[in-house]
Parts: sequence; structure tokens; C-alpha cells
Amino acid sequence: MAKVRVNCFSISLDGYGAGPDQSTQDPLGKLGEDLHPWLVSTRTFKSMYGSSDQGTTGLDDEFARRGTENLGAWILGRNMFGPVRGEWPDETWRGWWGKSPPYHVPVFVLTHHARPSLEMEGGTIFHFVTGGIEEALRRAREAAGERDIRIGGGVETIRQYLKARLIDEMHLAVAPVILGKGEHLLHGLDLNELGYQLVDRSNTEQATHLSFRRT
Amino acid sequence: MAKVRVNCFSISLDGYGAGPDQSTQDPLGKLGEDLHPWLVSTRTFKSMYGSSDQGTTGLDDEFARRGTENLGAWILGRNMFGPVRGEWPDETWRGWWGKSPPYHVPVFVLTHHARPSLEMEGGTIFHFVTGGIEEALRRAREAAGERDIRIGGGVETIRQYLKARLIDEMHLAVAPVILGKGEHLLHGLDLNELGYQLVDRSNTEQATHLSFRRT
Repeated sequence: MAKVRVNCFSISLDGYGAGPDQSTQDPLGKLGEDLHPWLVSTRTFKSMYGSSDQGTTGLDDEFARRGTENLGAWILGRNMFGPVRGEWPDETWRGWWGKSPPYHVPVFVLTHHARPSLEMEGGTIFHFVTGGIEEALRRAREAAGERDIRIGGGVETIRQYLKARLIDEMHLAVAPVILGKGEHLLHGLDLNELGYQLVDRSNTEQATHLSFRRT
Repeated sequence: MAKVRVNCFSISLDGYGAGPDQSTQDPLGKLGEDLHPWLVSTRTFKSMYGSSDQGTTGLDDEFARRGTENLGAWILGRNMFGPVRGEWPDETWRGWWGKSPPYHVPVFVLTHHARPSLEMEGGTIFHFVTGGIEEALRRAREAAGERDIRIGGGVETIRQYLKARLIDEMHLAVAPVILGKGEHLLHGLDLNELGYQLVDRSNTEQATHLSFRRT
């Protein structure tokens, strides 16, 4: 059966998945970029963004690659789609990723504010879901068929799906940095109680990779 | 000059330094023992506790050994000294460690309740300090002379010294376990703002060792 997965979600040593004060300059909040050197240096990431750079192979790349495999739909929180808050003033904001986002499948964006679906180049369609995480997942399952659904983030979206015990597998990458403030991924959540088990831990120069599975 | 150090303080992947519900059966709180396999298996730890077992050498042992070097005094929170809360009913509780505790130097125990000093075998003397963390540190410095002072824990004690920017070096060992609840070491503290920098990160089978220094 199709799985609901988190992959390549980066947190700091002190547990933050994004810095504070997200803006168009700081899409990941202050210091948030420091979470992702392990990922952006990989061959998988570079080829997704059309870089001519080769990028690293090895374990970081292996995790990046696995994160892209067998996906039929994505779910994103609205803040991951963009910095706009409240009602959409118009339809000019089309995501952080330019004309051809790196998803290539339907992407369901959680929001309180309705907006028509948005078809991008390369197969990505953004659908705006106002009915909450369960509706988003139901629609993502329909779109994905046999393939998996990836919960892309941000922190608040993953927390909601964890609390609802709807995530089957979660891969976190702990970057060797301290953020000190921002959005904490696990504060107040008890992964043991929610049924998650650590099934793998591997280290690279730039990250500690933790893989959890719900049992 | 003598340094104020934290060494070998273990936390879970989700940041807890002790489980909930400390008791005589669970001195480290529920699941708290799961934080320390990396340490209790080392040759250094085993020899401190007079075990005939050889114990592991290698990086875990190296960190354990460094934690014991050049110490002239320790500071402990009262909960680390024992499970007794409130007024001391009598003087029968003499710590978790039997007749000859593994400190061998003066140990300053933070408490709100005065009690006469307690001389143990092997050079350990417990002094009970009611004047707070600065008084404890002043007295520990006097006792330690040129040697360093180690803040042994628990979580609340380390948090107080971190907030006061009184710790020079801190080595944390992140154990590959989830506690889910208990006493969180860093929640609400910003190590960056407090002046700490990650200076080393090394991995073993049983821990990720993180070394911080105040700059």
C-alpha cells in the first residue's frame, strides 16, 4: 500500500526545523539555510535544480535520492509554499521554485484560504486544500494511487501528521548546527507514545540521518 | 585558569537529559538508563566502579576519560544526589554511590535545605550549598585551585549555569534513543546567544559526541 513519508527533513542539533522570521529573503527563517548543506551539495539535489555541477555521491546523496523515489503526491504547509499570510491578495505568488518546480506530481498545499489550482511546467500542479490534513491526505492518496505520498513540511505540518499518527516513515537529517530558536519539530510530542521506532542511524560529515518507522 | 566543564552529559535524540518520575528505582527517571550505554560500557567507567570487567576502549572511553581528568571539585543538583525532596528528614541518605563515591574530591550539592558536610571514603566530601549556583561555584573554585570544576548535572543545574554563562566547555553525548518526555536540556535556551560554539562532533556506535566551547 502507498506509504506516507517524510524524507530529508533537516533539523538542528537543538531540534529546530526552521529558523525564526521567515521572509522572502529567508524562506527557511534566520539561519535556516544552515540546516541543508548536506542536501544541497548532493548530486540528486543539483540535478533536480538543473545545476551543471556534479554534486556529491555517497550516503547523503543516497538519502536524497530515496526521498524522490516512488512519489505520487506531495503535501506542503502553506508557509512552505510561500511567505504570503492570510487571504491571497492575488495569484501572483506561484511558489519558491520558479516556472518548473521540482515535484512533477500533484502537490497539496494546506491553507485556510481557497485558491484555484495552479498548473506549472513539468507536471507539478498545486492544489490548495482548505479542509485540513485529513482531506489533504485523502486527495493525495487518490492522486498518488500505488505510489507514496511525501509530507514535505514545514514543521507545523509534520507535527500535525505525527500527532494524527498518519506518517508511516520519517527520515530526519540532524545538521551539526545550533539554531537556538525557531520552529521546534518534536517539542511536546512523544514519538514513543505515537508508535515510532528508530530503525536506522547513520552519520556523514554533514548530517546524522535518523530513520523512524511507525509500528 | 580553572575551567568550568560539563562532560559526558547524555541526552536523547529528542533532547531529554533524564526521563520523568525519578525514584530510588529509576534514579535517572523512566527510560533514563537508556541514555548511558555508551558510558557504562567504557573501561574508564568500569574501573571507576571497581568492576573486574575490562570495558571498551576507543572514542567513547576517550570521552569518559577526559571527563575525569584534572578535576578539583564537582557541583551537583540535589536531585542528582538523591531522590529525597524538601527538608532532609535525617542524615541517612548519603548519595547513590555507596561508601566510596567515584568523585574523590569535594562535591558541592545545590539544595534549599542546609545539612552538615558529609565525608565519605576515598576523598569525596559532600558539601550542601544553600546560596545558589554562584555560591556553589565560588566555593568549588576555592576547593579546586588550579584544577577544573565539573558540573555533573542534572538538567536543571546545567541549565542554570548555561543561562548564567558560567560554563566554559560542554560535552554532550546524544544517545540513539527517544525519551519523548522528561527533563529537556535546551528547551528555551539559545546556545548561540549564550556564546557557545560547536567545536567538535564525532560519532560512535552508541553516541554522537558534541563538544561546545564558550567564546
